[in-house]
Parts: sequence; C-alpha cells; structure tokens
Amino acid sequence: MSIAHSVDLNDDVVVSATELHDAVVEILKGFGATPSDATCQATVLVEGDLRDQHSHGVRRLPVLASRLANGLLVSGVERDLVWETDAVLRVDGRRGFGPVVAYEAIDAIIERAGTTGIALAAISNSNHVGMLAPYIEKIAGAGQIGVALTTSEALVHAWGGARAMVGTNPIGIAVPTTTYPLVLDMSTAAVSMGKILDYAAKSRPIPLGWAVTADGVPTTDARAVASGAISPFGGAKGYALGVAFEAMVAVLTGSEMGTAVRGTLDSVEVATKGDVFFAISLERLGLVDHLPALQGYLDSVRSSHNGAQGDIRVPGDRARSTREYRMAHGIELHPDVWEGTLKLLDGVRSA
Amino acid sequence: MSIAHSVDLNDDVVVSATELHDAVVEILKGFGATPSDATCQATVLVEGDLRDQHSHGVRRLPVLASRLANGLLVSGVERDLVWETDAVLRVDGRRGFGPVVAYEAIDAIIERAGTTGIALAAISNSNHVGMLAPYIEKIAGAGQIGVALTTSEALVHAWGGARAMVGTNPIGIAVPTTTYPLVLDMSTAAVSMGKILDYAAKSRPIPLGWAVTADGVPTTDARAVASGAISPFGGAKGYALGVAFEAMVAVLTGSEMGTAVRGTLDSVEVATKGDVFFAISLERLGLVDHLPALQGYLDSVRSSHNGAQGDIRVPGDRARSTREYRMAHGIELHPDVWEGTLKLLDGVRSA
Repeated sequence: MSIAHSVDLNDDVVVSATELHDAVVEILKGFGATPSDATCQATVLVEGDLRDQHSHGVRRLPVLASRLANGLLVSGVERDLVWETDAVLRVDGRRGFGPVVAYEAIDAIIERAGTTGIALAAISNSNHVGMLAPYIEKIAGAGQIGVALTTSEALVHAWGGARAMVGTNPIGIAVPTTTYPLVLDMSTAAVSMGKILDYAAKSRPIPLGWAVTADGVPTTDARAVASGAISPFGGAKGYALGVAFEAMVAVLTGSEMGTAVRGTLDSVEVATKGDVFFAISLERLGLVDHLPALQGYLDSVRSSHNGAQGDIRVPGDRARSTREYRMAHGIELHPDVWEGTLKLLDGVRSA
Repeated sequence: MSIAHSVDLNDDVVVSATELHDAVVEILKGFGATPSDATCQATVLVEGDLRDQHSHGVRRLPVLASRLANGLLVSGVERDLVWETDAVLRVDGRRGFGPVVAYEAIDAIIERAGTTGIALAAISNSNHVGMLAPYIEKIAGAGQIGVALTTSEALVHAWGGARAMVGTNPIGIAVPTTTYPLVLDMSTAAVSMGKILDYAAKSRPIPLGWAVTADGVPTTDARAVASGAISPFGGAKGYALGVAFEAMVAVLTGSEMGTAVRGTLDSVEVATKGDVFFAISLERLGLVDHLPALQGYLDSVRSSHNGAQGDIRVPGDRARSTREYRMAHGIELHPDVWEGTLKLLDGVRSA
C-alpha cells in the first residue's frame, strides 16, 4: 500500500481519508482485530479527523492497539442483546470495540423503535466510542430522533471544587429534517484535555476559564492543569449537566462514576464507563409531517443576523462542511500522529 | 382568611407558603378554576417562590388569571390520554393548566414505565408548566429517572446572531439516590428575562454576556435587550443545546418553534409550546442496586474541594435547602407581587 501525503503551512501532514482509513484497518488487523471490527473502528476514528475533532481521531490509535495487545480490547466476540423490556436493551460489550458494540445496539434499537416508538440501549463493558455524531447520525438517517450519552474519565471539577470528579461527559442529539439532520455533539467540559496538552507542549498560556489549579484557582498555566482539573463549560450549569449525565449513565448501565471511570485514555485498565442511546421513530409515531416546519425554522435561525454578523450555524453545519472539505482536500494530521501511524504500520508489516 | 405578613430588610414582603398558596387558590377559583385545578396550579407557583425562582412563582398569577378570563386557559376539561404505542403517550392539553396536564401525563408514564421500562409523554396545547423540578421530582419519587423538556417564547439569540430565535428552553433531569434525588432544572439562557427587567427597572448595568443589542453586540444596557436578545448560557454550546431541545420538543409534540411560540408570557395568545417528559423505571429494569454507588459518588463530589473553597453542591441541593428555609421562615416576595396578589384577591371577593 502506498500512502501519499504532503505537508501544509502548519507543518501538518495532509492525508486522504481513504489512505488513512486503510492504514488504520491494516494496523488494527495486525493487532488481532477481525476485518469487520477493524473497518468499523477505523471509520469512526477517521470521522473524527475528517471533522477536525482530532481528539477523537487517529491520535487514539496507539492506545487502542496497546489495549488489543493487552487483552483489554477484544475483537470478534459475539454479544448477547438482552431486551429487559420490549423497549429497553441491555448490552454487555464484552470488552469489544466501542463503535462495534454501539452500532450493534443502535441497529437493534432503530429496528425496535419502529414498533415501540421509543427504544433505549444501555451498554457497559465496552471500549471508547469516540465522537457521538456518527451514531446519532445513523439514527437520524433512519428517520428517528437519536440521543447519546457516554461517560469518561474524571477530568472536570465540580463547580466551586478543585478536584477532577466528573467526566467530560458529552451529549449527542440528532433530529431529522427534510434535508440534513440537526446534529449536536458536545462535551460538557470547557475544552478537551488534548487541547490543554497542546498548549502545554507549546508553552502557551490557556484562556482563563478553561481550567483550575490543584487549589481550585482559575489558571492560565496549561501545565498546572495536570494537578488541577478542566473547568465545565458554561460555569455551574455546564457542571450540573455533566454530573447529571454521569449519574444517569452510571445508573442505567451499572458503570463506574467519577475517579473510578478508567480505560478510555490508558492501555492498562478495563474500560468502566457506560454508553446510553435513545431512538424515537417519527414514522411510527406519525410525526414525519412536522419536519418541513423544523426545516423552515432552522433555515430562519441560520439567517437571524441583522447585517454585521458572520455565519450563523445550526448544530452539525460546521462538522458537515468541514467533513466535505476534508473529503475533497485531505485530512490535516499533526506530524506526530502521522509518524505514529506509520510506525505502527511498519510494526505490523514486519511482524 | 387572614394573611399575616411582614417586611424584611430588602423591602420584600415575607409571607408563609400556606398563606400564599391559599390566596392563589382563592383567586384562581374566583376566575373560574375548579378546586383541584386551582390547588395544583397554586402549589407549583408557590414551589417557584419557595426555591427563590420567582420568575416561575406567583409573579405569573396575573397572566394566568387574565388567560382564564380570556378563555386561553380552561379549567375542568377532561383530556384523552392517547397511547401511540405502549411506551409513548400523546396528550392534547385542551388549553388546560400546564401543571394539571403535566401531572396527568406524568402519572400515566410513571405507571406505564413500571411495565415498559421507559415511557415518554408528548404534550401540546397546554399552558405554561412553570419550573420543571416539581415534575421530575415526582418521577424520581416513584423510583424512576425523570427527564423534562419544554419550549418557550423566543428570547435567546443564535450564537453569532442578533435576533431572538430560540426559547429559554430548560431541561430537567432527576435521578433517585438512596437519600434525596439529584435534580437538575436549568434554562439554556444565560439569565431570565425577569432578571434583566429587574436590572432595567433599577437602571443597573447588566454583566457582559447576558444579552446583545439589536445589532448583535454584547451590551451592559438592560434596556437595550428589549430590541435585542438574551444570550445563551455557555456560548455556542448553550445555544446548540437550546436549539436542539427546541427541535426535539417541536417535532415530538407538533408545537411551534422560534417566534411562533406564544402564550406563556402574554394574556392574548393561545399557548403554542410543547412539553416532553420521560420516565425510566429503575425497579422494572433491575437497576435499584446501583443507587448506593451513586449516593457515594455524589457525596464525594460534595467534598471535592482542597481546603479553601466553599460549599460544593450537587444539582438540587441549593433548591432543597432554600425550600426548607422558606418553609420555616416564610417566602420573600417583591412588594409589587404581593400587592398584585392582594388586589386580585380583593377583586374576586367583591365580584
């Protein structure tokens, strides 16, 4: 396989989505993943980079490879889908790839919601799902409203607190329209740990509001965050959302909370977070007729400036346009990420 | 009926919850409400004031009274509860009191979730529900996870926009524990319009970030907001949540969106917003065993300071302690609110 790449003005390496995808598949297979599992995981990682959400991109690959090598991530395992009721599915992921387990669950709740109107999947013992958008986009693509919640390692402090006690706990919501869906996919943290580490590596100050020191004092020192914590977005309200999502997901899935959540960032711990997905069938509930009004409303929001302002976006617009651009012009990867990928590729080829 | 009251240091009038409740019931009955409808609505209004959430308190009574007088709010009407599927309830509120319709729907989905695990209610054509906490607390009191969404008049601008296009669209989430539940009840706006009007009345500048002018420029001029818009909380993320909730609720309930949402603040328009409630039965799903771990986690969050910080709260803690204090020591009401209540009381007594 030949990997063409170039270097852009930021010293980033530009790689096509197809080439990146194929490299990741080959690496994952080299570490023991089945072809279908490797393809599913690679697709979701590349989706992160295609949307410039690199913290959920191929940067995650070395940890996934180590987890495969260490038996914390297992490929090719069959899972039981246990329906607790007609509308509620419980899934033991059996240490599978996060995206593989998530798509199994989502396929099942989409089908079920076609009968029950609403269906819920609660997943435990599964690996990191990455960004939420691809999953809820699949639900929306089936003409259903999709909602996703997942927990993660404690990195965020409670409002008024100093210690990292809450995950970056994102929420995803997708609602179909008559064109492309509204797709919200956002963390409840002010910023990702990846971004703070980038600032630390470049010895740049971070904006006030992103993080606090070990004493709970807001800081501009990116390096001080290692002993402190990331701040929630939006102050007390963002914290409240994050901790409520942590509670909901943990109770519904039986997963861990706070500092007991492990295994999405490291190579040595079993993943103890949980994932929850909801699907609501608009067709089954006779609600499809409401979509033209939603389309009109969202278009009116997009044009709700009074002259001077720039573009106004609806959730999902930016990711969609970024993705289209990257599909056409290639993905910009940090050189370390690309070098790491090539090194893994060399390793599996020479094994 | 004798109404005892005193005046506190802020010139607020201090009234007991019982006295306030009885006055509101008498007024609503005077305007044609049935005793049970009047009691339900009064209880929810007083709950707002008991938690110092006066924008959802008895301040709303004059509008409700006018809406009763104008036929926009109708008491004593029977409603059909239509189960679209075993798990999804659709309710036409038939212009009923928001709290009365909401509790009817909630009672039904709590019972149903005991069988189906999850149940959803989508309500249209109902009046303002007020704060969300009482409804989700009822769901949590039944040992279930409760989620509530409701839309409201467009008061909030899109991120990057200038015009009010999105409701203050709150979310409520309640999760049972082994003691009192976690109860999140928050708007997706940076601040309530009521608070901005308070600043305008006192000619005080508002903090930057609360609102923008008609040109979309952040402003400290509370009076400029009348032609501008309130800002979402937490910047682009708070906006994204607000518009996603607007879309979800409108599609699920068939209610209006954006500037077409009317009738929660005025006395002349039919209410065109929607309400959505979810109930998930922990007992039916075998999840009750997870609650001690949640209790332990929330207690660890409450103590996650490193010495210097003050109290750390979990969502619901502040409202609960405020409510307990107000129950014991009386509710502080703005004198205008109390005078307005007494005037309405005089009116119905002399009618």
